[in-house]
Amino acid sequence: MKGESVTGIGTRSPAQQHGTYQLLPFVLNPKNIARFDAGRVIIGDRRKYPFEQSFVSCRTVAEVASAIEGMVTQGSGPWLASVNALRLLTFNSPANPAVLMSDLLLARNRLVRTRPTNTAMTQRLDQMLGVAKDVLATNGDVDAAIAASIEATLLGIYDDYTLRALAMADLINDGDGILTNCFGEAGVLLSFAFARKQGKDVTVYAPETRPYFQGAKLTAPSLHEMAIQVNLITDNMPAHIMSEGKVQKYITAADLITLDGHVVNKIGTFQNAISAHAHDIPFFAFAWGRDDSKKERCDIVIEERDSAEIKLALGTATTIDAISARYPAFDITPPNYVSGVVTVHGIASPYDLKTLRTW
Amino acid sequence: MKGESVTGIGTRSPAQQHGTYQLLPFVLNPKNIARFDAGRVIIGDRRKYPFEQSFVSCRTVAEVASAIEGMVTQGSGPWLASVNALRLLTFNSPANPAVLMSDLLLARNRLVRTRPTNTAMTQRLDQMLGVAKDVLATNGDVDAAIAASIEATLLGIYDDYTLRALAMADLINDGDGILTNCFGEAGVLLSFAFARKQGKDVTVYAPETRPYFQGAKLTAPSLHEMAIQVNLITDNMPAHIMSEGKVQKYITAADLITLDGHVVNKIGTFQNAISAHAHDIPFFAFAWGRDDSKKERCDIVIEERDSAEIKLALGTATTIDAISARYPAFDITPPNYVSGVVTVHGIASPYDLKTLRTW
Repeated sequence: MKGESVTGIGTRSPAQQHGTYQLLPFVLNPKNIARFDAGRVIIGDRRKYPFEQSFVSCRTVAEVASAIEGMVTQGSGPWLASVNALRLLTFNSPANPAVLMSDLLLARNRLVRTRPTNTAMTQRLDQMLGVAKDVLATNGDVDAAIAASIEATLLGIYDDYTLRALAMADLINDGDGILTNCFGEAGVLLSFAFARKQGKDVTVYAPETRPYFQGAKLTAPSLHEMAIQVNLITDNMPAHIMSEGKVQKYITAADLITLDGHVVNKIGTFQNAISAHAHDIPFFAFAWGRDDSKKERCDIVIEERDSAEIKLALGTATTIDAISARYPAFDITPPNYVSGVVTVHGIASPYDLKTLRTW
Repeated sequence: MKGESVTGIGTRSPAQQHGTYQLLPFVLNPKNIARFDAGRVIIGDRRKYPFEQSFVSCRTVAEVASAIEGMVTQGSGPWLASVNALRLLTFNSPANPAVLMSDLLLARNRLVRTRPTNTAMTQRLDQMLGVAKDVLATNGDVDAAIAASIEATLLGIYDDYTLRALAMADLINDGDGILTNCFGEAGVLLSFAFARKQGKDVTVYAPETRPYFQGAKLTAPSLHEMAIQVNLITDNMPAHIMSEGKVQKYITAADLITLDGHVVNKIGTFQNAISAHAHDIPFFAFAWGRDDSKKERCDIVIEERDSAEIKLALGTATTIDAISARYPAFDITPPNYVSGVVTVHGIASPYDLKTLRTW
């Protein structure tokens, strides 16, 4: 992807122009997130990172779905693994068009079920099914078309990450302390990197993010690799760190944002936003794209995961079996706690998102 | 202690009158917290509870201090272990009065250093040193006097727990969902037990309390033992559970409360109080006693523990060694987020604490 042109020979895309790929840490290189390789989907195993850089290799759609459900990957991993999983059906496929389309639809439905709140995954799976349908209608090479569509989608996404990260970086001041939550993926991390390139020093506070410790395992090591100062904290510390005057901005990714400005993101995002508001600290949430099917709060389905996972820390029991637990994986921050939504057009008001055709 | 009289034969103390000892779970029975037994201080090992009911046996003051620093016990454990540690010097002591007092003072100073924010410990160690001094002045039995003073102190404390818990229980309504934080000790747990005895059903939400998981290891199993419905959650969930309408009250203990109403308690208490306030949920903090040396916020010393502990979960590394971390063990909730301080006289306003001689 690096060095290729989005809009034609001689034109450099935003990602190319701003050196985006050179700034990304290991775990955010698309090839290390999920790729199709010789009849297998290779998924970077985030459960073992940062202690190991290893991969899970899947030969079937069921294996990919199971890997996603098993938290092998998260963030942008589920959609990238899912669209590559479709190629397990199109690669060397002898099936007739109707059978293939039916198989692709079954695969799409199985994959969507792995993460009901992950709208990106659903949208991009549907996009690939559209490509397949069009190409089959003209007897074209479905596998090559899906591969090209994945590549083009990635190019567009990293350009969008770049535009959003540049908009956020412009608002970051030299010396800022920045709270984040979970793992903010390329958008959030690139905004810190661009701020650094602009000569601004930042210190990031990364909550560990129970129960899976994405903050400890992904965010802190990635920032460390990028030479950005980071302090790991537990999830019960953000307000205290704010009360010390050490946080000037709260910046996170978002799994989805409704058209009326509700930010859905990893559990904990909401209570940190409330604490930020109480300390007059602005909260900025990165959009990943507009989803017209999510208009308002009641359109959101919060994934309730297996509560047994709450009673484990890195596989060790924290309490006795008899105890009941709850595991809502995401929460909802209403627009009154959101200072700005970071879009490809700049920082938008959460109350004005409907007017933007793209985010 | 059970069945004994505080104020004389025929008079039953509040704890006796309300069956306090019968309501307490295993881990809150004073004999299971810390006791002196034949030249040793026996401390209940909360690191192994709820999986094991085991004890650490200490033969020296240094061993007791080290056990406290090593988180063998917490809550009311440090002071009870500390005052019993003094008996390691008075039990069969051949020392002359001046040498013994000097040794007791050195022991007191070593023990106080284990938990700088634990005012209860400092006060009760000084109380025992006063007893020793008085008894030595009249050539009395110092060890017996300290033992009796510990016993009387415990009796008084459990009476106070009972009075506070009854005051809180009166405000709990049938069907209430109650958020707590860390391990609220006898006061908080008894308030739920008394509410239950009054025929009110309550459901408690217990955050696990990283990094030591006191919520998972102590609060949830104790409530389960007491047959009170409890749901374990992670520390990033309280605001989300509130947004579901499942929390009607937020109730915690406090390590100390300043005369002007600042509540110092385990890290996380503050941000939950902010979220509670945002959801119109009242926050009640249990006083343990008045400390005139802590007048206002600037009199508070927040213990900053070894940040390496943040990078561990039950002994397993959550991230790579190179990562920096922060570990403030407590936080401060200012009085504007405190709906009431639970005292022996009832629920006081945090703004009116100075007028109460005892809490």
